Amino acid sequence: METLGIDIGGTKIAGGICDEKGNIRCLQRVPTPEDAADINAVVAGIYQRCKNDGDIRSIGISAAGNVASDRRTVSFAANLPAWNQYPLADAIENLIGDGVKVVVENDANAAGWGEYRFGAGRGSRDMIMITVGTGVGGAVIVNGQLARGGFGMAGEIGHMVMVPDGEACGCGLLGCAEQYASGSALERFAWSAARRQPCQSEHLLEACEYDRSKLIGPMVRDAARQGDPTANEAFDRIGEWLGRLMANLASVLDPDTFVIGGGVAEVGGMLLDPARAAFSRYLEASMYRQHASILEAKAGGMAGVIGAADLARID
Amino acid sequence: METLGIDIGGTKIAGGICDEKGNIRCLQRVPTPEDAADINAVVAGIYQRCKNDGDIRSIGISAAGNVASDRRTVSFAANLPAWNQYPLADAIENLIGDGVKVVVENDANAAGWGEYRFGAGRGSRDMIMITVGTGVGGAVIVNGQLARGGFGMAGEIGHMVMVPDGEACGCGLLGCAEQYASGSALERFAWSAARRQPCQSEHLLEACEYDRSKLIGPMVRDAARQGDPTANEAFDRIGEWLGRLMANLASVLDPDTFVIGGGVAEVGGMLLDPARAAFSRYLEASMYRQHASILEAKAGGMAGVIGAADLARID
Amino acid sequence: METLGIDIGGTKIAGGICDEKGNIRCLQRVPTPEDAADINAVVAGIYQRCKNDGDIRSIGISAAGNVASDRRTVSFAANLPAWNQYPLADAIENLIGDGVKVVVENDANAAGWGEYRFGAGRGSRDMIMITVGTGVGGAVIVNGQLARGGFGMAGEIGHMVMVPDGEACGCGLLGCAEQYASGSALERFAWSAARRQPCQSEHLLEACEYDRSKLIGPMVRDAARQGDPTANEAFDRIGEWLGRLMANLASVLDPDTFVIGGGVAEVGGMLLDPARAAFSRYLEASMYRQHASILEAKAGGMAGVIGAADLARID
Amino acid sequence: METLGIDIGGTKIAGGICDEKGNIRCLQRVPTPEDAADINAVVAGIYQRCKNDGDIRSIGISAAGNVASDRRTVSFAANLPAWNQYPLADAIENLIGDGVKVVVENDANAAGWGEYRFGAGRGSRDMIMITVGTGVGGAVIVNGQLARGGFGMAGEIGHMVMVPDGEACGCGLLGCAEQYASGSALERFAWSAARRQPCQSEHLLEACEYDRSKLIGPMVRDAARQGDPTANEAFDRIGEWLGRLMANLASVLDPDTFVIGGGVAEVGGMLLDPARAAFSRYLEASMYRQHASILEAKAGGMAGVIGAADLARID
Repeated sequence: METLGIDIGGTKIAGGICDEKGNIRCLQRVPTPEDAADINAVVAGIYQRCKNDGDIRSIGISAAGNVASDRRTVSFAANLPAWNQYPLADAIENLIGDGVKVVVENDANAAGWGEYRFGAGRGSRDMIMITVGTGVGGAVIVNGQLARGGFGMAGEIGHMVMVPDGEACGCGLLGCAEQYASGSALERFAWSAARRQPCQSEHLLEACEYDRSKLIGPMVRDAARQGDPTANEAFDRIGEWLGRLMANLASVLDPDTFVIGGGVAEVGGMLLDPARAAFSRYLEASMYRQHASILEAKAGGMAGVIGAADLARID
Repeated sequence: METLGIDIGGTKIAGGICDEKGNIRCLQRVPTPEDAADINAVVAGIYQRCKNDGDIRSIGISAAGNVASDRRTVSFAANLPAWNQYPLADAIENLIGDGVKVVVENDANAAGWGEYRFGAGRGSRDMIMITVGTGVGGAVIVNGQLARGGFGMAGEIGHMVMVPDGEACGCGLLGCAEQYASGSALERFAWSAARRQPCQSEHLLEACEYDRSKLIGPMVRDAARQGDPTANEAFDRIGEWLGRLMANLASVLDPDTFVIGGGVAEVGGMLLDPARAAFSRYLEASMYRQHASILEAKAGGMAGVIGAADLARID
Repeated sequence: METLGIDIGGTKIAGGICDEKGNIRCLQRVPTPEDAADINAVVAGIYQRCKNDGDIRSIGISAAGNVASDRRTVSFAANLPAWNQYPLADAIENLIGDGVKVVVENDANAAGWGEYRFGAGRGSRDMIMITVGTGVGGAVIVNGQLARGGFGMAGEIGHMVMVPDGEACGCGLLGCAEQYASGSALERFAWSAARRQPCQSEHLLEACEYDRSKLIGPMVRDAARQGDPTANEAFDRIGEWLGRLMANLASVLDPDTFVIGGGVAEVGGMLLDPARAAFSRYLEASMYRQHASILEAKAGGMAGVIGAADLARID
Repeated sequence: METLGIDIGGTKIAGGICDEKGNIRCLQRVPTPEDAADINAVVAGIYQRCKNDGDIRSIGISAAGNVASDRRTVSFAANLPAWNQYPLADAIENLIGDGVKVVVENDANAAGWGEYRFGAGRGSRDMIMITVGTGVGGAVIVNGQLARGGFGMAGEIGHMVMVPDGEACGCGLLGCAEQYASGSALERFAWSAARRQPCQSEHLLEACEYDRSKLIGPMVRDAARQGDPTANEAFDRIGEWLGRLMANLASVLDPDTFVIGGGVAEVGGMLLDPARAAFSRYLEASMYRQHASILEAKAGGMAGVIGAADLARID
């Protein structure tokens, strides 16, 4: 059965017809409008352009917001105030008609599911996807099913508190994982080290013109590749915290596989090597159990589209 | 369908026929022998005594050890060295014959499942059981299914690290939840406070004869009830950590229900009130989401028997 | 013997003749020029205006920077780049002539000494001054003498690390006391609490127009006085950390008196009550020792002038 | 001027005549009696045996207990209950007569002073002695004088809290430096690591017969020398915490010299190398200041005798 997968992101909406192998056909890309009704119109437009190309019975939508457990309503979206308790599935179903059924998923969950079904997680049964970007997002698969939680909020692994009274998080808590294993932590750790050891941070300090506010993650990556010890140390530190986070998650869920995605993870071993080492070091009963595989994501930028489409198919 | 549920504990083995409503019939209790073969014989004996009372096709066994994901082998049991990679299901099936199928479950998982199906968790779909005894154990239910993990180790929530470089845990890690939200933490916190404020700990210090090695959890409970401020403070502290642990778990799994069991939890509100308060305080996006129910366990001492029996039935 | 005390601050230079009782005569105030030579000229000008009013043999200068242990050279001043290894005493002595001797002190040390000699610390012998402003500064008096340290850097108590891997400090370390017991911590804690409990932060959120970047310490103070629970909680938290910091300092130096000054401390009990409570709670062997007095500073804005003048007299 | 120095330890009393260069003459050693009066008699006996060998006007006593700021009274001694508010100097002066004056010092202070005057600290002016044994003790010298504190309790540096909610300390606090930079921490860290990586701890586990209660510090030292990685790691960890402790102390007092003594420090570089590295890493403004020397103690077992004698002379 074919379904339409549509990923509504902050800057663009992407969608197309997805088959059961994760292939996309009739892919469309449209800038994201600011208004909720205009977004619905874009979704309907993608459906119209694709509908003669396949037999579409349902649409899976990946939405950047908290999705209620009915999988139809967006409870809250930080970047789109109009999506406050917004009945997104109803609105689109009414606009499209045709008896097409709409299912809404949180974007991290949809992408994690895409990775599970068609990417690095294929063959897994208990998988955790960790997205290391500016923050830390996640998706949790248990017994081959997506864990949405009782109220649709599962997978917010970046807000596990790892350091009591630690770095203040945007969410109002102190010491969230997101403040230690993320791109923003990378910048903070790099700046701290550079400030203390400027002679070991020449590439980085030049790149940001000695200005904290201009320092961004890719500069740390480049400085690490050029050999700045402080930049490498910053990757080691966020890698170590990522490993600790995975060890904590393994105590709860013992997944067979972790898949690490997000922009920061594109550096590969620079992040994953220290993460794997720390995972082993901090895993309970490390010597007496099998260890989860820790893999790089590979479903790419369309993971949300194919994941949402697949979730619309199977549930 | 009726099944036999048997709980092999450190001191006694209990078992009986369980129906689909969680009722037990033909309940047997036998002291636990030291030898693996003798344990098997006890299990077979319970089966023999019960088999004419019902139509038993399968036996669910709750075992105090790590159970492999095949649900037949005990990988490791701290208190029974002979159960090292021990094929428990094979051994019992061979001994009993009759075509009866044996399923083995970790004891915390079996009890958690019993609580989920027939106790405080009835009606839930995503539940986490937390057992607060000397240590902290757990069982995780996701989408109405038990989470066993990829290698049978899910639910070890007591070994999430909550305080980096914190109190040394028996597992070799530092700062595990088990060192902060458990009965042993209760003793440690009570002793620390009593040592610093002896005049506010009179009942407690008298009860343990001013000797740390004689101080046990029930003394703290009694001193708290008699009004020792330090004993009450110790309950507040482990309650606070229990709340923080639940908040961390909610970030990952967003359960609709937490069920709190174990010997320490029998004090009720003295533990649960501060735990609930801390849960709200440390929950991410606390104001903008529904909060899980936090309930006292109520399936009682037979939770493992009925849970194991039920798991043997449904899977 | 009379001496001239001069406090070179970031915005103004103040100075006058000080007698042995801490009285100031012939007080002058001049805006601080940007250039080192111009600053010297201002100091010389103050001397010229005052010299006929008394018999000035020496000048004590309070300087906002690190002062070398020779008490003549400014090693480093964050706000005045020209004062990098700058021989301030030489420069002023050469400019003034007359055989007048110049002694330079770090501004926190000078103010702490003023407080010790003429303010809340009178009669003490072992005193620690803690200045709670945007950051946390200090001055340490041991055996009735100012502790300058082997290299002039004593008293930087705001950079004791209190939370490993804690909040990033401007100095590049993580978890400095300055990030927990300061005005900037007050703002951070208040904002975190307000974000999580907006209905209990109405006065505060209105005052800052719901904008983190507009939130300043005095708004937290006012909101606390108007009854916002979150604002009061923020004062409790920084007070608690201040108490913990004092307990740590007491383990090292066991002062008879702490004097708490700085802008944030002007709220009095709102800060000092929780600080005193936490000090008792975290003090080693609290029950078995005498506790230091914890007093509000009272020497006021001229503490640096009279402290520097006095240090020039006695050493 | 010559004085008599006497060190009253838990198992033996040692004493002799000390000159101004730290030489000892007429050295006596006597087992420590259990009774306070008997201890006084031993002290008087040492005086009688030595008095014809020199012109003794005063006696300095190093006592294992808290000494009041009058330097005459022992407030509290953990190992000698009779020394509770005990007027030790009065008792001995009365017993001896002859107009000899007695001065009492805390043992850590006396030994630290001995090290300052005649050992590794010679030539220093601001020195901190850190004694790394089962616990962590200290002595603080500021401006060439011993810091006793307002109530005689200065130098208890082992009870600075370094990890909030960290390992429980015997004093009732959580996370004291003594639980991280001491011999008991060495054992704990070594055992934790060995438990998790037994194949890298063979020498250690054999030495203690796989029994935590038999594991003592010298076994960790020997295993480290034989190449057990886990034993080396344990030294690295306590070294790192020792470095962090020194960095914290440097923020307060900026000493020119740290002297590290005690049984654990006898391993030399195995402790001091990681301590020095961590000190540099955690020192505020590390790049912009002079760093204290970190030296091994060298006054040896008589440091308390010569230190007490010298303090009796100069004060």
